[in-house]
Amino acid sequence: MSIQQIDGGVCAAKGFQAASCAAGMRKHGRTDMAMIYSTAPCQVAGTFTSNVVKAAPVLWDRKIVSEGTLAQALVVNSGIANAATGEEGLWLCRESAEAAGAALGLDPGAVLLGSTGVIGPNLPMDKMTYGIQTMAKTLEASPEAATAASKAIMTTDTVNKERAVAFELPAAEGEQPVTVHLGGMSKGSGMIHPNMCTMLAYLTTDCAIDGQLLQRMTRRVVADTFNMITVDGDTSTNDTLLVLANGMAGNALITEEGEESALFEEALGVVCKALAIQMAADGEGATHLIETQVIGADTKEHAKTLAKSVVGSSLVKAMVYGKDANCGRILCALGYAGVEFDPAVIEVYMEEGEERICFYREGHILSFDEEKALTMLSRKAVRFLCDMKMGPAEATAWGCDLTYDYVKINGDYRT
Amino acid sequence: MSIQQIDGGVCAAKGFQAASCAAGMRKHGRTDMAMIYSTAPCQVAGTFTSNVVKAAPVLWDRKIVSEGTLAQALVVNSGIANAATGEEGLWLCRESAEAAGAALGLDPGAVLLGSTGVIGPNLPMDKMTYGIQTMAKTLEASPEAATAASKAIMTTDTVNKERAVAFELPAAEGEQPVTVHLGGMSKGSGMIHPNMCTMLAYLTTDCAIDGQLLQRMTRRVVADTFNMITVDGDTSTNDTLLVLANGMAGNALITEEGEESALFEEALGVVCKALAIQMAADGEGATHLIETQVIGADTKEHAKTLAKSVVGSSLVKAMVYGKDANCGRILCALGYAGVEFDPAVIEVYMEEGEERICFYREGHILSFDEEKALTMLSRKAVRFLCDMKMGPAEATAWGCDLTYDYVKINGDYRT
Repeated sequence: MSIQQIDGGVCAAKGFQAASCAAGMRKHGRTDMAMIYSTAPCQVAGTFTSNVVKAAPVLWDRKIVSEGTLAQALVVNSGIANAATGEEGLWLCRESAEAAGAALGLDPGAVLLGSTGVIGPNLPMDKMTYGIQTMAKTLEASPEAATAASKAIMTTDTVNKERAVAFELPAAEGEQPVTVHLGGMSKGSGMIHPNMCTMLAYLTTDCAIDGQLLQRMTRRVVADTFNMITVDGDTSTNDTLLVLANGMAGNALITEEGEESALFEEALGVVCKALAIQMAADGEGATHLIETQVIGADTKEHAKTLAKSVVGSSLVKAMVYGKDANCGRILCALGYAGVEFDPAVIEVYMEEGEERICFYREGHILSFDEEKALTMLSRKAVRFLCDMKMGPAEATAWGCDLTYDYVKINGDYRT
Repeated sequence: MSIQQIDGGVCAAKGFQAASCAAGMRKHGRTDMAMIYSTAPCQVAGTFTSNVVKAAPVLWDRKIVSEGTLAQALVVNSGIANAATGEEGLWLCRESAEAAGAALGLDPGAVLLGSTGVIGPNLPMDKMTYGIQTMAKTLEASPEAATAASKAIMTTDTVNKERAVAFELPAAEGEQPVTVHLGGMSKGSGMIHPNMCTMLAYLTTDCAIDGQLLQRMTRRVVADTFNMITVDGDTSTNDTLLVLANGMAGNALITEEGEESALFEEALGVVCKALAIQMAADGEGATHLIETQVIGADTKEHAKTLAKSVVGSSLVKAMVYGKDANCGRILCALGYAGVEFDPAVIEVYMEEGEERICFYREGHILSFDEEKALTMLSRKAVRFLCDMKMGPAEATAWGCDLTYDYVKINGDYRT
């Protein structure tokens, strides 16, 4: 039972269709609305922003997820966030859902909503309605439609973000296992500070799975993937991740934790990790992906905090951009993470495949092969490993480098 | 009894002399060492980095402060941080203190040390000794010597930072009050992330004051000034603030909290606040100082957290640079600060003197005079006021804008 990468994004799973259009909320005629539709009702799991200020569509979707309502469509717009819009914002959500319900023949309560863009202005309902009606007529179950949808939700993103996988599960009826599909798209960039941007991620699957189980798995997977590119609490007003499961694969309904749920959770992890890494690598102006793995921590929480502190450090980011192995900055970022450790015993490495350079051991910055370090720092992906020598816990975090003039000051600091 | 601003920096107070030199640790022959010497022994108060990884000079100074040893000299170098240098680092501190003790006729335990620069390399003792001997021969009690010292400790700073004040206190002997002086210098910039740089601040006063009382006051003042331009925990391996008090003003020794100590603490606050604001305004590449006052919070801690969240937000910083009143970003930064509040009742303003613009009230971003906002955002200093409507607590934090190409992406996001 292995997990295979496939094409198709949010249309990879049976029964899911996508559409997009330019409704006139963005300049230069660029597409600014996306729709996902499932021919069968879906279980919905979701995680939402921890910001005290929550956008209206977040409140709308959270209600559907918490009440366990089945949903069948999703409408997303880019350009206007529908945040800090008070009661009108919620009214505009209802109007949008009613327009989509009318166009698709659904109850408005089966329509999920997402927005990303400027905080403050109200959604222009004429444009929203036009976009919804246009998309309802052009829904398609094709990789091209999925890709176009993933592009329509972009804001400062430079590339669209998609991933899909397939795997086999026992069938509901018959002897032969069935193929289950899981795909997704996301948007979000600007990782110089993780609060830069709204992160939206939408996943679709034809797996037959219990809604509450799906919700528990989604929380666990998000904690190890999307939340490892975001510092806790540093979230926008609109951050949303939704998983829609329509059960059309025909697998035996998964209702409890076990071998089958573990495979599904692994697949969910593969897709979420891929989308999260794509977001980290697409940080505004980024030229490198930075991966930091912390091993030997006393607890998983401490490992996460330390790993995130390193990838979040502006000085580490600037160092990677400047290809300057000023590795004391990694040590410094570990030191201010707020986790106790013994600086005299920890070890810090840079790795690439089988190659590794030890930067720090036994309380000292070591001298190392500067040319080899330069070669490693010249790769698109740069990886650091920190061994805390305290226990068995580990975690990995992802970020990107810090570029442009600001970095000239720091990237050249040592020379 | 009022507090007057005067010239003189670290040489403003009686008995203090300063020197600086180019010892060859920085390129282009720039000055890289500073010395402060007091003709009488000093009480010393200090606050130090909370980083788990502490540089050797931090450990050296902390021992002097915690043991209540009297000190009489301070030697600072820029270029090399003497951090992550293990036992050798401490040995190099001892060597430096012995060299300064020999040159000045002091016990090595009366010599404070400071370093800022690259983490990892050892201090070159030949250059340190040369610098110490050179400076010991060129000590001067002059504003020029103080300014030169404040320049020698700069790293990525674009301007040197000094401030001094004078005020009157009752004399130890006789009827007439005496004039007491308090001056200081600091270095540190790179406020894009507050962990950017080492912050060093050195204050000198001729006030006669009990050492433990001085330490308590210093902690309180630093919490409201230097720590309001730094997010908790986000500190370098070398951050150090020291206050040296030699008692030469001839005031009646202050031994307990009261009217006299309150005046001294106010003066300490004036100097520390001025130095802290100079540091915030000198953020790398900064074109604006950003001040955010939070009022109406339920607790002082919450007020501080909220104010720091706003000035620390990359999106708010980018907005000020772009002069784009995309004020939802202020609301967003309050929302992810980790403090509960009711978004439906808070108010957010931009202020300049008597003028103010209300950005947000009763759950809505308001429409406002865009031209007036542009004028306010064009000033060197930009000030936001957030009223949480919860209680009587307030706090102010300072930061700077985020500039260059990175900001083009975010500063133009709304248009």
